[in-house]
Amino acid sequence: MKLTIRKDELNEAIQQVSKASSTRPAIPILGGIKIDVTHQGVTLTASDTDISIQSFIPVENSEFIIAKVEKPGSVVLPAKFFVEIVKKLPSDELEIEVKEHHQTSIRSGSSDIQMVGLDPEEFPVLPSIEESESISVPGDLLKAMIRQTVFAASTSEQTPILTGALWNLQEGQLKFVATDRHRLASRTASVVTEPGYRFSNVVIAGKTLVELSRLISDDSSQVEIVVADNQVLFKVNQVLFYSRILDGTYPDTSKIIPQEFQTELVLHTKKLTDAIDRAYLMSREEKTNIVRLATQEDGTIEISSSSTELGRVTEHLEVKELTGEPLRIAFNSKYMLDALKVIDSEYLFIGFKGAMSPIIIKPIDHPYSLHLILPYRTTG
Amino acid sequence: MKLTIRKDELNEAIQQVSKASSTRPAIPILGGIKIDVTHQGVTLTASDTDISIQSFIPVENSEFIIAKVEKPGSVVLPAKFFVEIVKKLPSDELEIEVKEHHQTSIRSGSSDIQMVGLDPEEFPVLPSIEESESISVPGDLLKAMIRQTVFAASTSEQTPILTGALWNLQEGQLKFVATDRHRLASRTASVVTEPGYRFSNVVIAGKTLVELSRLISDDSSQVEIVVADNQVLFKVNQVLFYSRILDGTYPDTSKIIPQEFQTELVLHTKKLTDAIDRAYLMSREEKTNIVRLATQEDGTIEISSSSTELGRVTEHLEVKELTGEPLRIAFNSKYMLDALKVIDSEYLFIGFKGAMSPIIIKPIDHPYSLHLILPYRTTG
Repeated sequence: MKLTIRKDELNEAIQQVSKASSTRPAIPILGGIKIDVTHQGVTLTASDTDISIQSFIPVENSEFIIAKVEKPGSVVLPAKFFVEIVKKLPSDELEIEVKEHHQTSIRSGSSDIQMVGLDPEEFPVLPSIEESESISVPGDLLKAMIRQTVFAASTSEQTPILTGALWNLQEGQLKFVATDRHRLASRTASVVTEPGYRFSNVVIAGKTLVELSRLISDDSSQVEIVVADNQVLFKVNQVLFYSRILDGTYPDTSKIIPQEFQTELVLHTKKLTDAIDRAYLMSREEKTNIVRLATQEDGTIEISSSSTELGRVTEHLEVKELTGEPLRIAFNSKYMLDALKVIDSEYLFIGFKGAMSPIIIKPIDHPYSLHLILPYRTTG
Repeated sequence: MKLTIRKDELNEAIQQVSKASSTRPAIPILGGIKIDVTHQGVTLTASDTDISIQSFIPVENSEFIIAKVEKPGSVVLPAKFFVEIVKKLPSDELEIEVKEHHQTSIRSGSSDIQMVGLDPEEFPVLPSIEESESISVPGDLLKAMIRQTVFAASTSEQTPILTGALWNLQEGQLKFVATDRHRLASRTASVVTEPGYRFSNVVIAGKTLVELSRLISDDSSQVEIVVADNQVLFKVNQVLFYSRILDGTYPDTSKIIPQEFQTELVLHTKKLTDAIDRAYLMSREEKTNIVRLATQEDGTIEISSSSTELGRVTEHLEVKELTGEPLRIAFNSKYMLDALKVIDSEYLFIGFKGAMSPIIIKPIDHPYSLHLILPYRTTG
């Protein structure tokens, strides 16, 4: 294998795939980036077996020649050093040459780097996914859907299935749900699909979705999603992102969401967020994060928290609408803030079915987001 | 005590002093910020006994009224919560009122915060420093002097005196030295003093100097420095910064600095830095950071590092000047990079007195900076 390639394009592709290489690989090959060179271009692949990322650099684009391939071939190079050294090479171009025993030399300007390469035959084979059916989602929408749900996924490995977000597709509606048993976030969007195409119980690890998000640009360019038996493939421009689907059955959460409420509030999202944020600062010192919300006789609401050592925060908030019964309820203010921060409408709805029932928070502009928080049982 | 005060000015002063409050105070009062209110203004003080910071907010400045004092007084409030809550208050102004038993209420817009205050009589008394003699240094110069030396101070508490930087003043020359026994950085500057004023063996903790740096703005406004028996006072605008002087005698480092060299090099600072940075990436994988430098017969130099697992980096560098004997030497590339990064001239001088003697690095534009690195004894 021998080629010269522009540093910037190689560096960009390395940054994209390197997220999938293990930082503490069980075997050295999993800490590597595989380089496949053909006369069409250069393919980089990294995989930690949970996720695999592949990026393709064509030999030329509409503007200029990116790579000159003298001899096709493959090699695997240790990711950590390779990622950093390419960034810092002195010239805009580098030459990569693989000799006997995968010995690789990289030359750029006055730098000469010899690397111990690994056998590409030992590199994990990417899942083969039959591309019969797929959906396309605008990148910015997919990113928003991930951001608005993934924070509610569990971080505890005790229930592995809850560390993921559940994806369902039914009648052109793509729905994401995440829950850690204390709170739940869901987000729905209409997507373009083949008629009748559906899937269910596709659960993708939260940390995988965060990595995927970073690859997607903040515009409406389409991300193609292909769901197979135990893998999902995302196509983001020149990048293929493969994720394992988590084993197990995601719990049915539909029944815990109340449909009727005893007390209903419409509040200014930012004002509520700021008031709870101040009460949170005090509640955090008690390690409980308990904040109380109570309707007042004058039609306002009071938000408060207290700490035996520090004191008390009391906030008064005007409401836009208040209907139903008087209410006193306590909840985890950190969970509430997490939900409030991803609500994108100026006003929001909060529904309560009594002090012991789940709290429902929704934007008032659209029906696509829903957040649920279980209240705390407290005295007084 | 009762006053109203503008949030932004109070917040700025809180941010300045809070660096001195203990995050894990031995007694609660050391985790507090003391507030003293008079008809002239508001004084905030924090102290962890090693450093103390005091900031004064006048009741008015040339533009507007900052504080309206209804009743003078004092209180100590827990720093962590106070720092964060003031930032997040809803209105541009807040009212602070201290009642019985130091109980403090803060009101701002719709927020009402009750805080458990502490007795100001229990707060540490600031050192009293007689201001007979002092020196003035432009802020940007003082920051540069700190930045160019403090990284070389030891981080090991085994030799506490070396965790500080040594300051000496003699004949109008202020000199900073820091060393961890493996490398040394020194910086000198001419300052304006009373004739004959001098001090020696003033050693200030590295982490204190880093905090001090953050308080100083990047312009030439003067910082006044008053040295007392066991304390130094820095006056930075409205802020007083007190630091303890470390106990003990700083070692005499003047004798270890070679004055004559067997090999002398003048090199382009940035090109050398980049070449060593690439060699460092490889040496880091071996945990040794060993990089080798060798003069070549063609008048260039070679910089190299190797790792049994990863391979080898070789760099060739043109020199501006090379005089004296051929040389092969090995050194800690991390220490070399630390020194190179604070050298502010385009070309630098490196002097060697053989492979076992200290390496000296200096800018070529001025005589005020000097760096020393001990070489490694290596085979081959």
